[in-house]
Amino acid sequence: MSAPGLFISFEGIDGSGKSTQARMLADTLRAMGRDVVLTREPGGSPGAEEIRALVLQGDPDRWSAETEILLFTAARRDHLERTIQPALDAGKVVICDRFADSTRMYQGLSRGDLRATVDQLHTLMIGREPDLTILIDMDPATGLSRALSRKGLEERFESFGHDLQAQMRQGFLDLAAEFPDRITVIDGARAPDAVAADVTTIATARLP
Amino acid sequence: MSAPGLFISFEGIDGSGKSTQARMLADTLRAMGRDVVLTREPGGSPGAEEIRALVLQGDPDRWSAETEILLFTAARRDHLERTIQPALDAGKVVICDRFADSTRMYQGLSRGDLRATVDQLHTLMIGREPDLTILIDMDPATGLSRALSRKGLEERFESFGHDLQAQMRQGFLDLAAEFPDRITVIDGARAPDAVAADVTTIATARLP
Repeated sequence: MSAPGLFISFEGIDGSGKSTQARMLADTLRAMGRDVVLTREPGGSPGAEEIRALVLQGDPDRWSAETEILLFTAARRDHLERTIQPALDAGKVVICDRFADSTRMYQGLSRGDLRATVDQLHTLMIGREPDLTILIDMDPATGLSRALSRKGLEERFESFGHDLQAQMRQGFLDLAAEFPDRITVIDGARAPDAVAADVTTIATARLP
Repeated sequence: MSAPGLFISFEGIDGSGKSTQARMLADTLRAMGRDVVLTREPGGSPGAEEIRALVLQGDPDRWSAETEILLFTAARRDHLERTIQPALDAGKVVICDRFADSTRMYQGLSRGDLRATVDQLHTLMIGREPDLTILIDMDPATGLSRALSRKGLEERFESFGHDLQAQMRQGFLDLAAEFPDRITVIDGARAPDAVAADVTTIATARLP
């Protein structure tokens, strides 16, 4: 029987620094001798990356919200089966940049009536949560200026204005209030090293 | 308010002649002055065709049964939203070569424990059945020799041997027994014109 792994996800609005923090935590844990798999959603396995491309490229209106949720769930199922679960079974730490909370937040925000559907689909086809979710909280004005500075191919997730960013921040904070045992909120409006120190403290306390 | 449409699906094992019969019925109803949309699954809308290519091309083991069901359901949702429902709303007859029964049968047969998942996913994300399903029943030996004679790119659905074809035939007959009000079984082991005459009788009786 292998040692139990640890599954950590990072969430936050665009520009919050969550991807940087995920990478820094991976580096820190590796320096401590841990075997770490750093991954991201949507994507994270060859099949899921193909689905990601199908969803994110082309006209943003080409898929309905419902079809998009099904495609994201298909990608997540593949990612979980092919990347996350095998790593956890081997006793590794999995650090994932976005997981199901992003679907709950983004799809739930764009179509409020879909939150129940997202949850039922998750229960039916995914069935597990990260052991720990770190929410990097960030003032939307700061997050937006950061996000706009690196706008690229997949700009659709970053093409939202200030009001929507503010709603998204609140959406993530609401999820943190809904799942207080799993989600820890960290103030991201500080120097990356200061944020990383908090992240390291919280994550290492959960290491098996 | 537009006239109600009629949604007819055709099911059957490969080589049963269901695609031919779907086409013949479309021709017959058009000759009667009906507006008909002839479509097929997986696929049937631009997005669903892209998902079809993602699922059916490449290594058959690249997707798990669960991921495959999610992808087929995403394709079906898109097909329903973009092709089937708009046509029904406009009072047209929609004839679809395969629909959800194929997923129930093929995925349920390959992984018996998945039938309940298929059904829950269908209830959650699709939520409707054809008004009439015509099952073209066929002796597997006859069906297999027909199917093998036109084996092409998407041979995976046709790369099954005789025993599996026999199980599939039985799987469809079991579905017909489960949904007797919706599914009508027609003997496909006759000349196409004779089969088509039966199909026409059954379909025209359901026309609004």
